[in-house]
Amino acid sequence: MENGLWQLLVRRGFLVQSSELYGGLAGFYDYGVMGAPLKRRFEDTWRRYFLSLNRNFHEIDGAIVQPEDVFRASGHLEHFDDPIVACIKCEHAERADHLLQEHLKEKFEGLNEKEYDALITKHKIKCARCDGTLGHASKQNLMFPVTVGVQSKTRAFLRPETAQVPYVNFARSFEVTRKQLPLGLALVGRAFRNEISPRQGVYRMREFTQAELQIFFDPSALDAHEDWDSVKIYRLRLLFAKDRKKTVELTCSDANQKHGIPKFYLYHMARVQQFYLDVLGVAPERFRFYELSDEERAFYNKFHWDVEIDVASFGGFAEVGGIHYRTDHDLSGHARVSKKPQEVFYNERRFTPHVLELSFGVDRNVYALLELSYKEGERTVLALPHTIAPYDAAVFPLVNKEGMDTEALRVHNALSKKFRIFYDDGGSIGRRYARQDEIGTPFCITVDGQTMKDRTVTIRNRDTGKQERVSVDALEIKIRELLD
Amino acid sequence: MENGLWQLLVRRGFLVQSSELYGGLAGFYDYGVMGAPLKRRFEDTWRRYFLSLNRNFHEIDGAIVQPEDVFRASGHLEHFDDPIVACIKCEHAERADHLLQEHLKEKFEGLNEKEYDALITKHKIKCARCDGTLGHASKQNLMFPVTVGVQSKTRAFLRPETAQVPYVNFARSFEVTRKQLPLGLALVGRAFRNEISPRQGVYRMREFTQAELQIFFDPSALDAHEDWDSVKIYRLRLLFAKDRKKTVELTCSDANQKHGIPKFYLYHMARVQQFYLDVLGVAPERFRFYELSDEERAFYNKFHWDVEIDVASFGGFAEVGGIHYRTDHDLSGHARVSKKPQEVFYNERRFTPHVLELSFGVDRNVYALLELSYKEGERTVLALPHTIAPYDAAVFPLVNKEGMDTEALRVHNALSKKFRIFYDDGGSIGRRYARQDEIGTPFCITVDGQTMKDRTVTIRNRDTGKQERVSVDALEIKIRELLD
Repeated sequence: MENGLWQLLVRRGFLVQSSELYGGLAGFYDYGVMGAPLKRRFEDTWRRYFLSLNRNFHEIDGAIVQPEDVFRASGHLEHFDDPIVACIKCEHAERADHLLQEHLKEKFEGLNEKEYDALITKHKIKCARCDGTLGHASKQNLMFPVTVGVQSKTRAFLRPETAQVPYVNFARSFEVTRKQLPLGLALVGRAFRNEISPRQGVYRMREFTQAELQIFFDPSALDAHEDWDSVKIYRLRLLFAKDRKKTVELTCSDANQKHGIPKFYLYHMARVQQFYLDVLGVAPERFRFYELSDEERAFYNKFHWDVEIDVASFGGFAEVGGIHYRTDHDLSGHARVSKKPQEVFYNERRFTPHVLELSFGVDRNVYALLELSYKEGERTVLALPHTIAPYDAAVFPLVNKEGMDTEALRVHNALSKKFRIFYDDGGSIGRRYARQDEIGTPFCITVDGQTMKDRTVTIRNRDTGKQERVSVDALEIKIRELLD
Repeated sequence: MENGLWQLLVRRGFLVQSSELYGGLAGFYDYGVMGAPLKRRFEDTWRRYFLSLNRNFHEIDGAIVQPEDVFRASGHLEHFDDPIVACIKCEHAERADHLLQEHLKEKFEGLNEKEYDALITKHKIKCARCDGTLGHASKQNLMFPVTVGVQSKTRAFLRPETAQVPYVNFARSFEVTRKQLPLGLALVGRAFRNEISPRQGVYRMREFTQAELQIFFDPSALDAHEDWDSVKIYRLRLLFAKDRKKTVELTCSDANQKHGIPKFYLYHMARVQQFYLDVLGVAPERFRFYELSDEERAFYNKFHWDVEIDVASFGGFAEVGGIHYRTDHDLSGHARVSKKPQEVFYNERRFTPHVLELSFGVDRNVYALLELSYKEGERTVLALPHTIAPYDAAVFPLVNKEGMDTEALRVHNALSKKFRIFYDDGGSIGRRYARQDEIGTPFCITVDGQTMKDRTVTIRNRDTGKQERVSVDALEIKIRELLD
């Protein structure tokens, strides 16, 4: 991770290794007094945006601990594993694919154990820690098992993704929402994976937060969307699997006609790209969709493009989300194992709905936005999007006398009813501005001598450093305007 | 649980047994399309209220999985257990204290294993399931262990309470917030306890959500609060341990002077009671603080009053929260095990801060509010507090023609920018009102024939059933007014 940034994040209470008091536990992080509101505001922004796409998109919430059958149906029990190689001498374990990638500067995914062994032997790869000989590659399931109950025990797992909760709740939710398709079930919550060597900071965490939207729809309507016209000339930034050299810009219409990507899928790609570019303010050149090749895709994902952002400490463009057309893989799996059909009767036909999954890693996104916002130079600034900055504004009295402190507190209290407002009366004004710059507060309001005469205050803009004077009475409207 | 209510909750998508597709897992629940927004709004209301009590109260967020040392320091490893007795014949296990309470209609807490055995023998209590003989009582630790890592394994646990995350983050947070006391660290998140026999619905869940605020303060200021004057004549509803017959109403001032409860503690009791009575609208006679006796209290809690609400399906007054003056028990425990002193230098002195914990079970509170809001009769109504109802209002076209549907959608879309708005154009108006009553929507807005002439709509009040006409242009202000 970027060093100056990481120090700032720890020093300012954004992020810290979890249980650092005890030396920390690899792959676990805590969010501090600045990080927690930032993360929550990202989640709220995500929720507002994606739930507003359709009146039949809803949020649900459910248990992290799920019984074994759920993961028998989903395939996680059998297939959710990474290839592992361990040193015969010191027992240090690594992911076989990552090890090869590090040595050979090439991506390796989806090989079998023998292929990994052959490559490791061929290239004489040794243990990174003690130079010992590596054992045979094997598969390691990544789920955390837990045992529920005391005398009569039930085998269960911490969910490795939030998605299974909407799947097992689909039939009931379809009833409750009066049997309409598409039905969207969103869930923002924790997921857990016992990653083999989580050395990449927040990029590969063992406990992480996902924001996922499962859209259940009629597969006969795959190449349609009622709001298609609103996106058809919108230009998507695409990196096709067949040409990994260059991101191309294509209208949804062209992507549909020339590349056969269905309209229902493209509509949601467009909305995802707009979320990043328009809502979060990510520069277009740092955003792209990455098409997974046939080898990279899970067999049940008929279309799979990752959402990638270019983040230096992630090593360039890296996955922060994905759009997965999962067909009826999930519902059919649950129908098979639970022996309860997951079919619906809709539009005069009986069928199992298909699923389009919009999946986002909250921690990765939050970290990516922090890094993209970080500017060093004369001033150190986190130029965070207004919608996710921990505070909307800060209020300072220029000095703690002549009534300025009382007036500043009054302004603070009045604005706090509508906004998240920081109050700071310590140190020089310059230092107070610098502190707010470091936590990304867009606007600083100062009560000074002139305030006491004409009831105006200064508003200072984080990004330009410029100030303007505004009447105290117009402050709420002004701040609202500036934030929007 | 109350039967009609539970059916409504399942039918309308509030709550459902988790993984019901697979027969369910005892002690785990999912929140559906109505329950998830309700729960989230409760959390947001809690957060807004308690974080606004002091500018130095902040929210943090942290890992659910914590290493063993954390729970060695907290005492959970050694002491977090329930007494269990299992049937020798069928292995059915129960909590010894609950078993005795059921048979002898008396509370049993804090006995040792021999005392439980003696009482079970004396009263000839048999296995509830097969009438077999019960074995000896033993202690069962309630934490869920998990193993982190693959070759090199670390023993860890799912946190049994959120509180340890603020405790292990105290030192860092104190630095970040510039070393001021009191410092409040709130956390809303999951906790996990492997309850022995979780048969009481949402009251005793194995996975549940807590909303807790840990207030770190200078113990020399225990009998003071800067805002004491605002609560001193406020009357608390108290059930003293020495007289369990009758709840008494006492001013904070009297509670302080006549009963020696410290002002810092009383101030927060008053704010908690105001949260229930004023913000959530709980009737005073259904609310009380329950003082734990010396036998009931944990040894480190110098003052401990539970927050209780009278909820029929909880069996009357039942714990939904607690106010715990934990002294320096937690920080000293972590200092001892981590060997890192948790002292601060503040007000010219060096000391370990004390902790006042405000602790709430989100699921219990949400369920209690649902049950208190539930009214059967001519109409079935969930008279939920406006601040937590899943929707603020609903919009209907009287019929789907003559432009009423277009206008209704326009109204829906305009209001949706500011409020959570339900749209319904199916069935008779009477049925649509009934549906909204059942999910607790405070106001229903109908676009009818007259709307097309004079741009007025009706607003119907959930609680009175009465309607009034309002201009479409005044709707936003009107709804805001009605909700506040």
